[in-house]
Amino acid sequence: MELDVKINKQSHLPLYRQISDAIKLSITEGRLSMGFRLPPMRLLARQLAVNRNTVASAYEELIADGLIDSHVGRGTYVTEAPRDGDLLQSADAAPAKMPWEGLFAKSFDGPAVATLQDLFQVGTMEGYISFAGSYPADASLPIAEFRNCINHALRRYGRSLLKYGATSGFAPFQQFLAERMNKAGMTVQPENVLVTNGSQQALSLVAHLLLDPHDAVIVENPTYSGAISVFSSLQAKLVGMPVDGHGMEVADLEQAVARAKPKLIYCTPNYQNPTSGTMSLARRRRLLEISRRYQVPILEDDYGGELRFAGETLPSIKALDRAEQVIYMSTLSKSLIPGIRLGWVAGPVDLIGRLIAVKQMDDFSTSPLLQAAAFEFCRRRYFKIHLEKTRRLYQRRCDRMLDALARYFPKGSVWNRPTGGMFIWVWLPESVNSDAVFLEAKKLGVLFSRGNLFFIDGRGQNQMRLSFTTATEAEIEKGVRILGRIIQAFLKKSKQPRYFSTGESLPLV
Amino acid sequence: MELDVKINKQSHLPLYRQISDAIKLSITEGRLSMGFRLPPMRLLARQLAVNRNTVASAYEELIADGLIDSHVGRGTYVTEAPRDGDLLQSADAAPAKMPWEGLFAKSFDGPAVATLQDLFQVGTMEGYISFAGSYPADASLPIAEFRNCINHALRRYGRSLLKYGATSGFAPFQQFLAERMNKAGMTVQPENVLVTNGSQQALSLVAHLLLDPHDAVIVENPTYSGAISVFSSLQAKLVGMPVDGHGMEVADLEQAVARAKPKLIYCTPNYQNPTSGTMSLARRRRLLEISRRYQVPILEDDYGGELRFAGETLPSIKALDRAEQVIYMSTLSKSLIPGIRLGWVAGPVDLIGRLIAVKQMDDFSTSPLLQAAAFEFCRRRYFKIHLEKTRRLYQRRCDRMLDALARYFPKGSVWNRPTGGMFIWVWLPESVNSDAVFLEAKKLGVLFSRGNLFFIDGRGQNQMRLSFTTATEAEIEKGVRILGRIIQAFLKKSKQPRYFSTGESLPLV
Repeated sequence: MELDVKINKQSHLPLYRQISDAIKLSITEGRLSMGFRLPPMRLLARQLAVNRNTVASAYEELIADGLIDSHVGRGTYVTEAPRDGDLLQSADAAPAKMPWEGLFAKSFDGPAVATLQDLFQVGTMEGYISFAGSYPADASLPIAEFRNCINHALRRYGRSLLKYGATSGFAPFQQFLAERMNKAGMTVQPENVLVTNGSQQALSLVAHLLLDPHDAVIVENPTYSGAISVFSSLQAKLVGMPVDGHGMEVADLEQAVARAKPKLIYCTPNYQNPTSGTMSLARRRRLLEISRRYQVPILEDDYGGELRFAGETLPSIKALDRAEQVIYMSTLSKSLIPGIRLGWVAGPVDLIGRLIAVKQMDDFSTSPLLQAAAFEFCRRRYFKIHLEKTRRLYQRRCDRMLDALARYFPKGSVWNRPTGGMFIWVWLPESVNSDAVFLEAKKLGVLFSRGNLFFIDGRGQNQMRLSFTTATEAEIEKGVRILGRIIQAFLKKSKQPRYFSTGESLPLV
Repeated sequence: MELDVKINKQSHLPLYRQISDAIKLSITEGRLSMGFRLPPMRLLARQLAVNRNTVASAYEELIADGLIDSHVGRGTYVTEAPRDGDLLQSADAAPAKMPWEGLFAKSFDGPAVATLQDLFQVGTMEGYISFAGSYPADASLPIAEFRNCINHALRRYGRSLLKYGATSGFAPFQQFLAERMNKAGMTVQPENVLVTNGSQQALSLVAHLLLDPHDAVIVENPTYSGAISVFSSLQAKLVGMPVDGHGMEVADLEQAVARAKPKLIYCTPNYQNPTSGTMSLARRRRLLEISRRYQVPILEDDYGGELRFAGETLPSIKALDRAEQVIYMSTLSKSLIPGIRLGWVAGPVDLIGRLIAVKQMDDFSTSPLLQAAAFEFCRRRYFKIHLEKTRRLYQRRCDRMLDALARYFPKGSVWNRPTGGMFIWVWLPESVNSDAVFLEAKKLGVLFSRGNLFFIDGRGQNQMRLSFTTATEAEIEKGVRILGRIIQAFLKKSKQPRYFSTGESLPLV
């Protein structure tokens, strides 16, 4: 019997999970049987060229699953029988059941597909102090006003709201969105607008319409996990551009475009997701110039353009565009209410017309009722008041988090100071692994988004995205303090030159 | 100068549109210039081996577009300049505009993609007597009850309905759907259910998850246009099984499965869409047996299972399934309200888990608010009462339409007598082209769905789908009378041996 663990550092599956999954499989398939002694953590870590804490996290998972156990003097060994029978292929299951796992399309077999699921699942967990979810706090959701609006809409438009409705959208809402974009310097008619179920659908429709398998896409690296998942599921080849405090770096962009011949450039110029930097005007112009020269469309994801609370507002890339080369998308999920699932995409009529066909295949149309209610909300002063309140709230919470970070995070940590949006991005000292911090923090009731979920190449192991929008100020104080302690503990242990035997508990409190 | 028209009888684009598009292109690209005389209709018809009415329809379109004109003695000729500048590439437009048409993925370039768009567009047109839309009549949409429910849901569940919500669905609604399916003889837990934006999204998600390019899919032929479009956009190879009064014929199914090695069998066993036949129990069992033997999943689209108004209820294929080989999907769009966009898919946990990942990429989640309101509606007596009312209403309208057909449609027409659902399928005498009837009927204010939209191989030119659910009884009477007259006129003309010169008007009143 021998332990056979292979890991892939390019994969988006966290390394600790790759390791625990491999060992789990060896046990459930009978290749490692009861009593088998696993190698000491430091040996396996050296052999796999990973941080010892990564192996410690993997072993912790397996102990929690009841597959292995450890005692001082005996080391870590495979237990008699897994405590949770569900982990195994049940031997007495009817043999004729359809083998679904083998039936999935290639597109949905890759690990990248799990990235968004991981992000979303953690982001919507209840009962934690959550810095993971990128959505407004419960208390700030304007339920009374929205109920007024939905009732008003039903009275005003009647049964027409209960019919399928046009695929392109509820006309007054399209009109409102076009006017709003025009006020922001874009040139948009209602027929340039397609309403979608949140901007995730906008992203998915555009990607499906433009990408054939193996087409290249330029993305910021790190970038929004949902984009990584969608592009990967279409078997696109992702080409990452580095990001700094001013968004996507464009110095090497032309060379990258010339070499990769991408079908699309995807970017989040305002409060870049996840690093929160805002792309400078000069970079926006340069990006547009390269897009034009090489005839590569830009997908501008302005998820949080309305959420600026400091600094000057820059024109969107779409507002600078004179050659119809930019597809613009945004959403009401961040500025208003996520649960009404409303986003939109704006672009040239040639594109929108075809996108309508793609959306029809996807789900026919977006609920006219929710669009009418949102329109009602937006055209009243409700929206203006709500936006101002939301901006102030986010700014307060952001300040509170910056303050707490300064007090509780160890020296050697670095973070940005956002001018809007929802996130603070943190670089931890190199020896600290954010996967391990995540596992520990979760046990203590605190959630955040692990850095490597946002990278296309498995980097970001010492980085983390902290959302400041969902938790209250008191929760922010408490959550950041807990995170700080965990990180301090990891840091302290990593500086000590001694090794732990596998029988010891994790180097944490 | 020569006219170059190529048509593809396998295409889902109507032949008349293929012809008018080809001529339009020749004119706008300058290959046919002002004054060029188009061939007489009968010549072009003979040359292309199509019905002369098809060419007449194509010429009519071009005349309406101002691209050609016809006068007695001069024949049909290209006009001086198109009256509608929009048809042409404007010569003075900025030359650097992004050439979007060339940027679309192969998947969305095929003509099949247009099929659903055509169906949906016509189905949602206002101001006509419509036999095209497959949805309830305005007046029967329960707006007051639904408003009660949405307000109740907002009071009961509060702000939690305004958050993203779980991708799998709003838990009480999933529970309700599972219980309802169990009552219908299926074995379903809430975790086997994924709520979708209407059943179109269910279909799209399943297709994306299971199909790689060039995979084969068995479909009924004719079948639901939305399925043709989705499968085609994934570059699947469609294999059609014939349909009779008892749904999909299964005599040659095993041979087809053995030969094509499909990844999926798609069927609509209740009130087959579009022919309205219901698959017999024996056929359901045989289908299941073949699916099991060859390990090919079945996607059972039960869009209208709740809409039976005559005959006995048969168990769904899913209810007969003991090996988890059936994916079941249904919708509230036909039985309740289309505008709330709620459908669902039920299947093995292995499949549903992966579908959840696909849905996350597609749009994160379905509005919890609409799900909670629908749940509220369903758990009250509202749903039971509404369903009974709807069934009676549809039966009355169906009877009225059958009666009108008998009075107004010519001898040689054949139609089925539905036991539920929404459609009557009509075979017209072979010489009558339903594309031509459609154009004429539209001018006179009546819409229906052209038969060839439902075939995978361009057949169905003399067939039509009439929905009896949307129009009132008076409208049904009037609309069928108008259709009958148009068809009678076509029939009469087609029996006369003389030919028309191209200068003459269409052989209609």
